[in-house]
Amino acid sequence: MTTDYAWLPVDITVAQAIDELRKQAPEKETIYYVYVLDQNRRLLGFVSLRHLIVAKPTAVIGDMMQIEVISVRVDADREEVARMLARYNFLAIPVIDDQHRLVGIVTHDDVIDVVVEEATEDALHQAGVATIVESYIDAPFATIWRKRAVWLACFFVAELVLATTAMAHFEEAIAAVLTLTMFVPLCISTGGNSGSQAATLITRALALGHVELADWWRIMRHELLMGAALGVTVGLVGFAGALVIQSDNPDRWVLALVIGQSVACICLWGTLLGAVLPLVFKRLGFDPGYASSPFVATFVDVTGILIYFSLAELYLL
Amino acid sequence: MTTDYAWLPVDITVAQAIDELRKQAPEKETIYYVYVLDQNRRLLGFVSLRHLIVAKPTAVIGDMMQIEVISVRVDADREEVARMLARYNFLAIPVIDDQHRLVGIVTHDDVIDVVVEEATEDALHQAGVATIVESYIDAPFATIWRKRAVWLACFFVAELVLATTAMAHFEEAIAAVLTLTMFVPLCISTGGNSGSQAATLITRALALGHVELADWWRIMRHELLMGAALGVTVGLVGFAGALVIQSDNPDRWVLALVIGQSVACICLWGTLLGAVLPLVFKRLGFDPGYASSPFVATFVDVTGILIYFSLAELYLL
Repeated sequence: MTTDYAWLPVDITVAQAIDELRKQAPEKETIYYVYVLDQNRRLLGFVSLRHLIVAKPTAVIGDMMQIEVISVRVDADREEVARMLARYNFLAIPVIDDQHRLVGIVTHDDVIDVVVEEATEDALHQAGVATIVESYIDAPFATIWRKRAVWLACFFVAELVLATTAMAHFEEAIAAVLTLTMFVPLCISTGGNSGSQAATLITRALALGHVELADWWRIMRHELLMGAALGVTVGLVGFAGALVIQSDNPDRWVLALVIGQSVACICLWGTLLGAVLPLVFKRLGFDPGYASSPFVATFVDVTGILIYFSLAELYLL
Repeated sequence: MTTDYAWLPVDITVAQAIDELRKQAPEKETIYYVYVLDQNRRLLGFVSLRHLIVAKPTAVIGDMMQIEVISVRVDADREEVARMLARYNFLAIPVIDDQHRLVGIVTHDDVIDVVVEEATEDALHQAGVATIVESYIDAPFATIWRKRAVWLACFFVAELVLATTAMAHFEEAIAAVLTLTMFVPLCISTGGNSGSQAATLITRALALGHVELADWWRIMRHELLMGAALGVTVGLVGFAGALVIQSDNPDRWVLALVIGQSVACICLWGTLLGAVLPLVFKRLGFDPGYASSPFVATFVDVTGILIYFSLAELYLL
């Protein structure tokens, strides 16, 4: 935001206004958008230099100004401000306090910075890296290490405790049908990938304003159907693939059934979880981007293992 | 880009120019940036309306215009154009052909659209979803399904073929030391998460122009050290964690050594691969964002399994 905005009183003529702007020009950020203020700096209206140039020189500002001015409050979220400026294609947007006084303006170039910064932040959160403000290559090694290590270690400990415990729980099933272990990486990656897709789509749709928190039911219904459709797709591929890979195993049909059903369920579950977590994070006031790849993946890994071995026990033991 | 740009001949006065702009205003996208052209529409210079307002009305455009005009070629990449506009905080940038004729202008609001679209595209590619132009919630179900299913199925088949084969290769080791299987999810997620961090950081640094392809050696050296530092971190946590989890196993020290060393190696390897793949993709002319999460993860999963069981065979068999 800048406080170097151009402004005019309400009762002068267009010719006087252009003279006034000529004087104000050197110290103002922009003179293309001009705000009309009363003696208490309250925002009365808006004129653009374009309108001033086209208007009759004897017209009075108060008669030609635009009275409905789209503005933002001083406490508005910067992403929200950027989105408004972008939506209306404004050069600037006025920032007002609770007494409708003009505090400053946010200009179009600020918006590009915000949009680029937000995109970077989102991408990093999505990959489980804390926000890095500096250029990646110039930032101190220890800073970058810390911002990566914290999340990496968190995910690592979660996976160590949860996934390892889940696997240990099924040691008996594994010992009985050793071939089951072969497909553990497949189950894990299916959950992670489908969850990461859903989480990214929802996070991005929230960032773009395509969906709101209030649409949660519509989103969940959409992702339930999508998860089922994607689940059937990978389930069929998994079934066929397991049959081929295990072609010399007498139990191949049962095994293929277990694999196919497991990856279908895991895909549906990963998709639902990937869709719901960004909404939950946003509701709790966190960046929905945090609910992405590694976060969802770690969570889905464990439940994937449970789904897979539970189905295996059901069919094979 | 728009072709509705305001323009002036070189030999008129400032007063005449403002009159001319008053006439052009209704049909032009902006009259704040004005381009000075010769009779063949070749770009001679540039004036802003701000300069015209402040200038002496009798001055001649040719004497007051800015001669060095930053412009882009018609075949310029739209991301590059957006970056230039953002860097210089311009309202618009002229687009010229190979005879230096003005073809049109790109305005600030186009840039925000480009930046937002590119960010969305990057985020989706990063999660293994093909570019979705439409609003997520309004796009046809079949379109979204296809864009998600294609990559999901590709990753699935790759994982099915590669990871399952890799696991089958170590069936003997698994049968001998069943406890080894418990840590497979941990090894896989460590590789995926460290790879995804590195890939996102490099992809974003490339998008922001913080690093170039030519910096590849500097990036690799940086990520080699970073991968080693992160590897030591998770390696120590893994060693300690395995000791605790396997506290009643007489082989716990050897097992912890295998786990610690494996996750350290996998983390270093994932980081290096995550750093190198976006560079390779960019070099080959693909979006570096494609070289992200699921792509790196699938690749690292397989090598992670190889690293883990090879170390296990070395120490335990």
